[in-house]
Amino acid sequence: MTEVVDKAKKAQKASHIMAEASTLQKNEALENIAQLLGNKAESIIQENSLDLDRLMEKEGYTKAFYDRLQLTTERIKDMAEGLRAIIALPDPVGEVTSMWRRPNGLQVGQVRVPLGVIGIIYEARPNVTIDAASLGLKSGNAVVLRGSSEAINSNKALVKILREGLKQADLPEDAVLLIEDVSRSAATELMQQNQYLDVLVPRGGAALIKTVVENATVPVLETGIGNCHTYVDSNADLNMALEIADNAKTHRPGVCNAMETLLVHQEIAASFLPQIIKRLEEKGVECRGCQITQKYVNSVKPAVEEDWKTEYLDLILAIKVVENFEEAIDHINTYGSGHSEAIVTSDYARGHAFLSRVNAAAVYINASTRFTDGFEFGLGAEMGISTQKLHARGPMGLTALTSTKYIIFGDGQIR
Amino acid sequence: MTEVVDKAKKAQKASHIMAEASTLQKNEALENIAQLLGNKAESIIQENSLDLDRLMEKEGYTKAFYDRLQLTTERIKDMAEGLRAIIALPDPVGEVTSMWRRPNGLQVGQVRVPLGVIGIIYEARPNVTIDAASLGLKSGNAVVLRGSSEAINSNKALVKILREGLKQADLPEDAVLLIEDVSRSAATELMQQNQYLDVLVPRGGAALIKTVVENATVPVLETGIGNCHTYVDSNADLNMALEIADNAKTHRPGVCNAMETLLVHQEIAASFLPQIIKRLEEKGVECRGCQITQKYVNSVKPAVEEDWKTEYLDLILAIKVVENFEEAIDHINTYGSGHSEAIVTSDYARGHAFLSRVNAAAVYINASTRFTDGFEFGLGAEMGISTQKLHARGPMGLTALTSTKYIIFGDGQIR
Repeated sequence: MTEVVDKAKKAQKASHIMAEASTLQKNEALENIAQLLGNKAESIIQENSLDLDRLMEKEGYTKAFYDRLQLTTERIKDMAEGLRAIIALPDPVGEVTSMWRRPNGLQVGQVRVPLGVIGIIYEARPNVTIDAASLGLKSGNAVVLRGSSEAINSNKALVKILREGLKQADLPEDAVLLIEDVSRSAATELMQQNQYLDVLVPRGGAALIKTVVENATVPVLETGIGNCHTYVDSNADLNMALEIADNAKTHRPGVCNAMETLLVHQEIAASFLPQIIKRLEEKGVECRGCQITQKYVNSVKPAVEEDWKTEYLDLILAIKVVENFEEAIDHINTYGSGHSEAIVTSDYARGHAFLSRVNAAAVYINASTRFTDGFEFGLGAEMGISTQKLHARGPMGLTALTSTKYIIFGDGQIR
Repeated sequence: MTEVVDKAKKAQKASHIMAEASTLQKNEALENIAQLLGNKAESIIQENSLDLDRLMEKEGYTKAFYDRLQLTTERIKDMAEGLRAIIALPDPVGEVTSMWRRPNGLQVGQVRVPLGVIGIIYEARPNVTIDAASLGLKSGNAVVLRGSSEAINSNKALVKILREGLKQADLPEDAVLLIEDVSRSAATELMQQNQYLDVLVPRGGAALIKTVVENATVPVLETGIGNCHTYVDSNADLNMALEIADNAKTHRPGVCNAMETLLVHQEIAASFLPQIIKRLEEKGVECRGCQITQKYVNSVKPAVEEDWKTEYLDLILAIKVVENFEEAIDHINTYGSGHSEAIVTSDYARGHAFLSRVNAAAVYINASTRFTDGFEFGLGAEMGISTQKLHARGPMGLTALTSTKYIIFGDGQIR
């Protein structure tokens, strides 16, 4: 038996016990893990330094990559705080979402249950180890983790703590397992353990997600890229539009809910474009515009077809002047990735039509797309942002890690 | 461009209009279809007879196969009635399932939206053409149908009516499209139209479902087999247990929610087994039992390991005496297919433990598993019964054919 099959099997066994664990017991395990993180910060940092040393021996790694891999006392403290935030969240398991009585007296209801075993495939970010595992555990699941080779020592150290915390709370250690075989074939093997895994969650960039979607036979909770738009309507409050567009582009340009294309109604283009472009350029944003945009502001570079499709994740913005509301909707539904889309308008009908007609996980009237986030939406935590339509769409909190089952109370009913 | 790509693309375009269609308009289309079915029954039956004639030229078709393929005036009337039942159901689209206010004043809510384009792959049962399409249309989707070659003339005639009914209601005809290329490669091509299809629903036997799961890259709403159990506890009302077990086995043995294995607590085996076996044998049921069962009733044939795993879909029943409640749970969670499971008991704690610990789409206390059905549960209609855990579990009604999106109302919020 390979490591993958062995661990997938063990996780499934542990998942049956986790499904029955009380909220108190699960919270106790999470609290133990938070405390152990604090107590063992030094040894975690030591193990992490092995990974960092190994990275530095390689050529061509980036500063950003190093930064994401690095663990510090501060970051470990953040992980522990994250755990305590998850402890504070309501347990989704056991919630009876609805129950009704049938004419024959049967009571039919639906109750929330854990998914079972969640496989998590991620990149060289050791914080995901704690973050993803704790969400999985709180929702009563077992998790099988498959991090990247660059973080293997850090991940081993963190998984040891996760398992210790479970053990101290009399829960099965095997509710968290790390695949230590960092080969590509082991990852593919994990993606095909349909007998033992209920779902896969890839956490990382577009290439990772693509690999998982293409190779998995286990169902995937797919997170996607964010080619997000802000459309400034002819009836917009232009000061509000300035604030929203600036925030959506510059607050944190490297994340999936940042604006990548600004659409501007032709009627306000002359007054709005010079203002917003000046403001963005002062913050270092490179603006690439359509011909009309270039006409209003000379400094703007020309945008080509490729720009409408691109998630820059950088201080670059594509700008297009649209003839009317219809063109804005068409542009978004053609080029958008179905993540987050916003309109700035004071027009009632257009605002509601935008909500209804734009095909995306999160659609805004008069707010920055930067709010698409489990914490900002009030879900308390987030496993990622789904841009697919099945099972979960948008920020995935604890309930996205559950399923339901029908429970039926009878007193002898037959057909 | 192949027929599959062309039609998938057209369906996606039509789906955007369907998503915005009012309930009145969708109901009008369904009513048109119901009326057209009545008016054109004769020509439908004529087209169906071409399929039946072709079938009879083949060797080795079964009477059951012929029967499922055949359309009669009565059956066409049933289809029209089915349509009117769907008209009477509430439209799931547009329901705001929840909405809340964040500390910064943002109002965040979730609204139900159609999935988009649903691919339906099914066998030689022309009634599925109307049934599946009407569920898809009522929930605001476009559907691409791929029936089997044996029913191609019937399906063409029915799809013509579906499209005519849409057109008369000013809805896009392309919201229903039939793939007329009945080759295997066209089916596989359809299963991989990720750019245009949002979900696939295979409707048919285990072999069809397996083919779809293995070949599809589009997400699948998987319906599964039903290896269903009834467990008669030591504290059961034995008269109730007799009624329930009899009903679960003999009411309609060929369907997925029929009982396939009866589990009996050892303490009541001596009194219960002779009664239930006599009753079932009188109805023509072949009983295959464990050694203890055979000890109590001589007529019982021995059950082997394979029997615990088998969905007979026939008048055959496997019977096992279990030492205790724990063994019953273990047996069900080991051999069950996660469809429908029942306990007969008067014990409060065991009843609730059964609901909680049995891993299945529908779990019953004191009722027949035969109730696992969209109509019986009160969903009004059913696209199939999901035995998977993602998106939809158990009978799939109209809401299973929808997704959600987040809608956010702001007044200038930025981060």
